[in-house]
Amino acid sequence: MAMVEISPSSSSHAIKASSFHSSKLSYVPSRISHQRRLNVRPPPRTRHAKVFCSVTSKEVQAPVAVPTEDPKKKSECYGVFCLTYDLKAEEETSSWKKLINVSVSGAAGMISNHLLFKLAAGEVFGPDQPIALKLLGSERSREALEGVAMELEDSLYPLLREVSIGIDPYDVFRDAEWALLIGAKPRGPGMERAALLDINGQIFAEQGKALNAVASRNVKVIVVGNPCNTNALICLKNAPNIPAKNFHALTRLDENRAKCQLALKAGVFYDKVSNVTIWGNHSTTQVPDFLNAKINGLPVKEVIKDTKWLEEEFTEKVQKRGGALIKKWGRSSAASTAVSIVDAIKSLVTPTPEGDWFSTESNGDGDYELVKDVIFDDYLWSRIKTTEAELLAEKKCVAHLTGEGIAVCDLPGDTMLPGEM
Amino acid sequence: MAMVEISPSSSSHAIKASSFHSSKLSYVPSRISHQRRLNVRPPPRTRHAKVFCSVTSKEVQAPVAVPTEDPKKKSECYGVFCLTYDLKAEEETSSWKKLINVSVSGAAGMISNHLLFKLAAGEVFGPDQPIALKLLGSERSREALEGVAMELEDSLYPLLREVSIGIDPYDVFRDAEWALLIGAKPRGPGMERAALLDINGQIFAEQGKALNAVASRNVKVIVVGNPCNTNALICLKNAPNIPAKNFHALTRLDENRAKCQLALKAGVFYDKVSNVTIWGNHSTTQVPDFLNAKINGLPVKEVIKDTKWLEEEFTEKVQKRGGALIKKWGRSSAASTAVSIVDAIKSLVTPTPEGDWFSTESNGDGDYELVKDVIFDDYLWSRIKTTEAELLAEKKCVAHLTGEGIAVCDLPGDTMLPGEM
Repeated sequence: MAMVEISPSSSSHAIKASSFHSSKLSYVPSRISHQRRLNVRPPPRTRHAKVFCSVTSKEVQAPVAVPTEDPKKKSECYGVFCLTYDLKAEEETSSWKKLINVSVSGAAGMISNHLLFKLAAGEVFGPDQPIALKLLGSERSREALEGVAMELEDSLYPLLREVSIGIDPYDVFRDAEWALLIGAKPRGPGMERAALLDINGQIFAEQGKALNAVASRNVKVIVVGNPCNTNALICLKNAPNIPAKNFHALTRLDENRAKCQLALKAGVFYDKVSNVTIWGNHSTTQVPDFLNAKINGLPVKEVIKDTKWLEEEFTEKVQKRGGALIKKWGRSSAASTAVSIVDAIKSLVTPTPEGDWFSTESNGDGDYELVKDVIFDDYLWSRIKTTEAELLAEKKCVAHLTGEGIAVCDLPGDTMLPGEM
Repeated sequence: MAMVEISPSSSSHAIKASSFHSSKLSYVPSRISHQRRLNVRPPPRTRHAKVFCSVTSKEVQAPVAVPTEDPKKKSECYGVFCLTYDLKAEEETSSWKKLINVSVSGAAGMISNHLLFKLAAGEVFGPDQPIALKLLGSERSREALEGVAMELEDSLYPLLREVSIGIDPYDVFRDAEWALLIGAKPRGPGMERAALLDINGQIFAEQGKALNAVASRNVKVIVVGNPCNTNALICLKNAPNIPAKNFHALTRLDENRAKCQLALKAGVFYDKVSNVTIWGNHSTTQVPDFLNAKINGLPVKEVIKDTKWLEEEFTEKVQKRGGALIKKWGRSSAASTAVSIVDAIKSLVTPTPEGDWFSTESNGDGDYELVKDVIFDDYLWSRIKTTEAELLAEKKCVAHLTGEGIAVCDLPGDTMLPGEM
């Protein structure tokens, strides 16, 4: 995959942030850091070292949990999920995998309200993968977090073995094998894009530091909160001990929307569209790639002869989808965003179908390979250069958060996607 | 299962509505109507006789759909789901079952917003069951329905082969094999319960007539909209050609909540609790049955010795859950309600685990058997008599909607569950 290197370095923790990047991969690491990653091994850790219970002993007949000294400062297991259990002792779970820890920020929000139930149902990691959900909220959303945990209790998901809630990322991200960073401040009225970059950047800088300190050494991070690409960059720059290639920015919703629009135009069902890439920033400069995309295995341009539509209308249709949806439904697209997060994770943990890509190929262990046979023409290249320039400008604008000096914000016009204000 | 017969009749269309009923089974039919049901065969029908497209021919390069004469009056397939396809021609789908038609009312609401994506993901009917979703909304929610359909498009679910939207139940329920009736008018400020029964009863009377006229002859109906038990009665009374035993009122959320509360009290994980029944009305007179319930295969009373808690606090905890959740989260429990609908359907289409029940047993084809070895004691019996009396009063209050004469509303005090106002 073509890659423009911004800050090549042989330092072990430095990464090359590609100035453009394909769907789901905001920042891809250099080969050096990739190889280095292979030598990093997670330290041995004790699971369930601290399980304590939000249920009072008065409530529970058989006391099963050990309270810690200061519950207020720690994330708390919730309700029924505070009960001890022994996975191995249970006959029906003998074929289950080892428990996986998934931390989710913005857990009280609408996207999470869809996503958490999909995770718990086994839709993402499969029907033999027990799961621990660690929910990160804010002081303000604390009660709402409890509401979410109550609904998870009432759902009786067999795979869902632990739920804990908290407001401190240093606590909630502990031992996380996946960190799904959904929470971000929405853009207020009159707020400049630079101000949004700064306010959210600070959140993601802190979360990066927290991941670096307490998460699994091979934690996979998916940044959903916007501006997701630059947030992902900030996050990874603040987590030097985690392989940079583990950080992803979600553009899968755009990819899915692009597939649907190509299907509609070609008059085929959406499962006939493959090899779709979204290059660049998750903004109006993004580049849904129809040059490399295929329909029924054929290049899109051989199937859709209307080049004007491809070059002028297609991208607009993808980008305006979110805004159109808000107009129709009155809310932003929480459900399909959650679906796209599921898709993104599944693409990383299951082998990519032969010949297809989701901008990267995966051999099924949460790792991925870069695709080599991507083609470019002048049109695609010029659009990629534009979105690259925007990413570079954003990067300079958050230099104070990435340890690269003094921020200089000279951003192009407002390129926030409709529906993401 | 003990059953009090209200209107025994040998008339072919009459059914015996049991005055109390267990989880998910609001009204169970007599043996006569059951046997009769076996002789009813659905008439041959042509699938996809009318597929037309909301995409203009200008948009679609290869025209694939046939518009009908008056799209405004008919439900419309939506967007990409208007495209023709041939399941059998597709290699990857060779192991798929025949397409199943699922109609959902209240499709633009929050419960549906969770449920539809679970249905489309295969969480309910399995990964080899292609599905057609027929979404029923109101004139007012028409645009929101389109928003939901757009999000379903963008989700690229391989199993989701058709989506149509409409506001006429005679159209949306056509050939439905499952009808999930979620939509109901919420209770306005100052509205009497009798008025709520009437206003919603009229909706369900109309929907019953529509199902009777156009649905599959063996359609399974799950009524979620409250007051769900009496709505289910009204619906089935207006659908004499559909087996009465196919109508269910959803009390599975109560059942799930009851399991969770028993697990918490006993200090076990919720998967250890089985054989839980919710008797009677989905109201504050409902009877979560701890006498027959089991924990780790043992009667609950042998595990939880605190009889006072069981008799006084347990039921309240189950009933107040919805209200507590609204207080925490600020919204009603859409996600866990959707999960309970999934559970209810799955219980009907998959074999019930040996020894367990969900108030009924199922042999896995959407049909069920009544459980025989239910026990009663004075406490359980007296509480069942109370909820029975309430159901009978509600029945008299909607006599004008069930073809049983003039309505007489003499309802006990307000028994609406907290959180369902």
